[in-house]
Amino acid sequence: MSTMRRNGMTLVISGPSGSGKSTLYKAVSGKLGGVGFSVSCTTRSPRPGEQDGVDYYFLTKEDFERRVAAGDFAEYACVHGNYYGTLKSELSSRMEQGMDVVLDIDVQGAMQLRALAEKDPHFRDSLEFVFVAPPSYAELEKRLRGRGTESAESLEKRLHNAHEEMTFMGKYDYLILNDVLEDAVAAFEALIRSLRLSVKRMKLEDFQ
Amino acid sequence: MSTMRRNGMTLVISGPSGSGKSTLYKAVSGKLGGVGFSVSCTTRSPRPGEQDGVDYYFLTKEDFERRVAAGDFAEYACVHGNYYGTLKSELSSRMEQGMDVVLDIDVQGAMQLRALAEKDPHFRDSLEFVFVAPPSYAELEKRLRGRGTESAESLEKRLHNAHEEMTFMGKYDYLILNDVLEDAVAAFEALIRSLRLSVKRMKLEDFQ
Repeated sequence: MSTMRRNGMTLVISGPSGSGKSTLYKAVSGKLGGVGFSVSCTTRSPRPGEQDGVDYYFLTKEDFERRVAAGDFAEYACVHGNYYGTLKSELSSRMEQGMDVVLDIDVQGAMQLRALAEKDPHFRDSLEFVFVAPPSYAELEKRLRGRGTESAESLEKRLHNAHEEMTFMGKYDYLILNDVLEDAVAAFEALIRSLRLSVKRMKLEDFQ
Repeated sequence: MSTMRRNGMTLVISGPSGSGKSTLYKAVSGKLGGVGFSVSCTTRSPRPGEQDGVDYYFLTKEDFERRVAAGDFAEYACVHGNYYGTLKSELSSRMEQGMDVVLDIDVQGAMQLRALAEKDPHFRDSLEFVFVAPPSYAELEKRLRGRGTESAESLEKRLHNAHEEMTFMGKYDYLILNDVLEDAVAAFEALIRSLRLSVKRMKLEDFQ
C-alpha cells in the first residue's frame, strides 16, 4: 500500500506487573520498523553499566527541578526521593521525524500525559493510550505467584498494586488482554499499523 | 487473545469512484466475522429483484418525511426527487448486539454523521470514519478512464466529483491509500481488528 509522510505517535503503555506488557512491546518493536523507546530522565545515580542517553538521561536534582519549573516535562514523579520524568522534547523530536515511540509508564504517569493531551493539541494528536491486562484477576495472581521469587508480603503488595492499576483500564484508548502471547503480539502489531493510518498525523498536503 | 463483550461500531466509509472501496470492504467482510452492512431507506420504487429489508427499506414519501420530522434518521438526502437515508435504529440495534456495520456513504452523508457523533455520545463512541483513496490523482484518472465505458462528459463529471470528494479526506479518522488491493485489504482488516480493542466500546464490567 502507498503511504504518506506522517508525524510519529507516542504509544503510552501501562499494565500491571504480570500483564506481560514489556515482552509484548519488545516483540512488536522487533517485527515492525520505526518504533523506538522513550528514554526517561532521572536524578538517581547511574548503576554500573548504565549509559547516559541510553538507559536514562542522568540529571542533577537542580537541573531536574529547573526543567520542571520551565514546563519541560510531559510527566514526572518523585519515587523514594529520586525524580523520574519524560521530557516533552524526547517525544516531540521523534514525532517530527515520523518515528513512533513506546513509553512504558505507570497509570499515574499516564494520567499526567492524558491531562497534557487534553490541553495541548500537539500531544492530543500524538499520544495513544494502550493498556495491557492479563485475561483475568485469577490469571494475574497465578502469574505473580508462579514467579516464586517473592516473599508473601511483597506478593501481597504486588497484587494490591495490580488491582489498583487495573481500575484505570477505562481511561485508556485500547485494551489488549494478554492471554496467549502470540495472539497479543499480533493484536498489538495490527494496532500500531492501524494507528499509522490516522488522518490526524498524516501530511495530507503530500497527496497529489 | 481473550476478548471481552463489546458494543459494535459503525464503519463509515467514503471514497471517490475509482478508489476501490467497495471491493475492499467486501473482501474484508468475507475474511472477518461479525461485519454486516447497513441497509438504507429510500422512497424510490424497487427495481426488479430488489427486496425490501435487503437492498433497501422502501418507504413512502409521507413515511420518510414523518420519520425525518421525528429525528429517526442518522443522515438523509434527497437525490433527483427521491429520498435516501439511514435510520439511527439500523445502526443502534446491531451495535447493541456487538455487531460491526459498514456504512458506505458519500462525503455529504458522512459529514451529517460526523455532526451527529459530535452531539450524541452514543454515536460518538460508535462511529469510526474511514476514507479510501487511490494512491494519487493521476492513478484515479487512469482508473476512471480505464473503464472505457463512459462518455467524455460523464468522465469529466466523475473526475470533478472525485476531486471534490478528496478534499474531505482530512475530516475522516483513518485513510487507506488503495494502491495494491491485497495490501489495502490487509490494512483494512488490521484496522477493524484494532478498533475492536477500543476501550470505549468494551463492557469492562465483564472483567473479573
